[in-house]
Amino acid sequence: MPNISHRGELMPASPIRKLVPFAEKAKLRGIKIYHLNIGQPDIETPKQMMDAVKNTNIKVLEYSHSAGFESYRRKLVEYYKKCGISLNHHNIMITTGGSEAILFGMMSCLDAGDEIIIPEPLYANYNGFSTAGNIVIKPITSTIENGFALPAISEFEKLITPKTKAILICNPNNPTGYLYSKEELLQLREIILKYDLFLFADEVYREFVYDGKEHFSVLNMQGMDEHVILMDSISKRYSACGARIGALISRNNKIMETALKFAQARLSPPTLEQVLAEAFLDVPDNYFAEVEKEYVGRRNLCIARLNAMDGVLCPLPGGAFYGIARLPIDDSDKFCQWLLEEFNYNNETVMLAPATGFYSTTGLGKDEVRIAYVLKKEDLNKAMDCLQAALKVYPGKVEKVHGSELGVLN
Amino acid sequence: MPNISHRGELMPASPIRKLVPFAEKAKLRGIKIYHLNIGQPDIETPKQMMDAVKNTNIKVLEYSHSAGFESYRRKLVEYYKKCGISLNHHNIMITTGGSEAILFGMMSCLDAGDEIIIPEPLYANYNGFSTAGNIVIKPITSTIENGFALPAISEFEKLITPKTKAILICNPNNPTGYLYSKEELLQLREIILKYDLFLFADEVYREFVYDGKEHFSVLNMQGMDEHVILMDSISKRYSACGARIGALISRNNKIMETALKFAQARLSPPTLEQVLAEAFLDVPDNYFAEVEKEYVGRRNLCIARLNAMDGVLCPLPGGAFYGIARLPIDDSDKFCQWLLEEFNYNNETVMLAPATGFYSTTGLGKDEVRIAYVLKKEDLNKAMDCLQAALKVYPGKVEKVHGSELGVLN
Repeated sequence: MPNISHRGELMPASPIRKLVPFAEKAKLRGIKIYHLNIGQPDIETPKQMMDAVKNTNIKVLEYSHSAGFESYRRKLVEYYKKCGISLNHHNIMITTGGSEAILFGMMSCLDAGDEIIIPEPLYANYNGFSTAGNIVIKPITSTIENGFALPAISEFEKLITPKTKAILICNPNNPTGYLYSKEELLQLREIILKYDLFLFADEVYREFVYDGKEHFSVLNMQGMDEHVILMDSISKRYSACGARIGALISRNNKIMETALKFAQARLSPPTLEQVLAEAFLDVPDNYFAEVEKEYVGRRNLCIARLNAMDGVLCPLPGGAFYGIARLPIDDSDKFCQWLLEEFNYNNETVMLAPATGFYSTTGLGKDEVRIAYVLKKEDLNKAMDCLQAALKVYPGKVEKVHGSELGVLN
Repeated sequence: MPNISHRGELMPASPIRKLVPFAEKAKLRGIKIYHLNIGQPDIETPKQMMDAVKNTNIKVLEYSHSAGFESYRRKLVEYYKKCGISLNHHNIMITTGGSEAILFGMMSCLDAGDEIIIPEPLYANYNGFSTAGNIVIKPITSTIENGFALPAISEFEKLITPKTKAILICNPNNPTGYLYSKEELLQLREIILKYDLFLFADEVYREFVYDGKEHFSVLNMQGMDEHVILMDSISKRYSACGARIGALISRNNKIMETALKFAQARLSPPTLEQVLAEAFLDVPDNYFAEVEKEYVGRRNLCIARLNAMDGVLCPLPGGAFYGIARLPIDDSDKFCQWLLEEFNYNNETVMLAPATGFYSTTGLGKDEVRIAYVLKKEDLNKAMDCLQAALKVYPGKVEKVHGSELGVLN
């Protein structure tokens, strides 16, 4: 039998999804699982958007333009205008999910062996797409003690080599929930211009910003038009993860022309789901206010419950709907699998994402998990009950005092 | 400004889509265009499939499993059984179009620098995905004089190097319409086993086989389970190109496990369009018989009209809905652009795909175009009227006698 590719061997399994087979088996055993492993909100997709698909009179489900419906791209110009971002529809390409925007952006800007600097913990799928394209991630570690704030610019500068082509930032951050300030982003701007790099920004959680803070978009940085590539998506904004509709955005025409060639190779994004996406204009303005209120409630509950548990630390996220929690455990991969395979609390358990997969540096994240607070408060409370009970009986429990390990108990 | 990637520079524009801006301008000038450039059938998507989406009661448009709906994969097992192909649902992964099946298959099996042998002319997007993955296509030229039959196995063998990992075959063939016989495929089997290679097969036109011939699937070759990777799609089968629902199929578990990691990185295929795809079971059995009858009529009309034109040669396709026609022209890229920019016949023109983009060998295909006979006969006739008139006045016309050039006229 011929061997599969080396990059296929290197390709990481998703930390968010690799435990799915264990979850499926637990469900077969009658265990109810609270899914805090994946950013799949339980909020209903706006009816106006679903209705647009149900009422379509499409007879032949045709390919669309490789850059997506022009009509939708023009409506997105209006959306960004409301966000204070000035674009024209040539700056926007519709992609099959934000995922494809990452892929096209990376492929258009980086060659095999090129380096991209990303603060870690990082969205796990950046690892995946980098591996697929033989691109090297140079991680710069942010710490839980510091609330996962942007590492000092001097630390970024230390990582720059002749192979460095780009820096990537996710704001608000997945998986930490950290909201980068305008000041932090302007520091990044200096280094981008100094070393003539690209700046990739993932802003899919733009609307999920709490406590009266404001989101500052990289698209509003002066003098950065040739450098900035934005990855966007409707998945979280409209609770439409399954639509797989995202966008790649840049004012750099050369990037857009190049990305279009990658887009042509895959022909077009899904047509029906573009019909759905385009109907976002019919969603009432108060939609986000209600969603924000709901998420603030969920966040407050979840983070308070976490920090009340013995040996658990979770900084308060400023945005998105994730948090990285440090747990008193030996190994987050083992613990998350154990939760599905061996544990239950009144026939229920909780599924979490081991944080190891969110670090590019091997060995980090072993006592951390990513928690997505995407369930209604009642369910979140039950999920926290499960976690609290689990931490009491987990065989690999580690006693922590002021953050230092005393050793494995039991 | 930082430079885009070398692979981005190398990435070919799609020959099927690169002339779209000229078509858009022609439409603005009031010109009606017959699109024979793209395999976008005008056949209606089965109502049963569209209705499945319209009647869905999905409230939260969630991600699906990265391998697609298990229910749909199980139904596909039944579909393949009807085709005489024995599979289980673990052999099947749902992809975002057949395009993604090509990408995942190539990425899972070939590294940067590895070689894949493909008979040319070839489906242009194989070029695109190979470039994205730094994979080297070694083309083996099939000729119009030979009706684009499989080149001799000895010719394949000459191309094999230590870097050769795979052979790819599209059957029935896009862009030539050639239907490979069982005998031809069994010859390929020998060389695959002898050199321990992968065999990629694109069988998305399986149902489009004419004149009472039978399609032989690579999945029915003995002793090839570890070697065969099939790329499939509902795009043409159900005239649902815009759904972007395909499948990657292999009985080699290692390949499926590896492809799943690439699939996890992009999360899931589109959910609503999987609902649509899954409803294929409700489509009546006589659907394909009617479609086949329609396409045979279109093919016969189109090929007869082409071969009746001075200096034009087009072999009769045995399957799919494409043909490669040799035209008495200097340069197919120039000609196809001229058709859109400078020509009209009663305010109408025809859009064709220059064959240059379907060859991997530079310089080939300059007097050939790909024609997709995807329009109803009335429209096909008008498109042929346009082409006939165009060939009389095209400034780059070349006089051909028995296939040899006499020189550019005018």
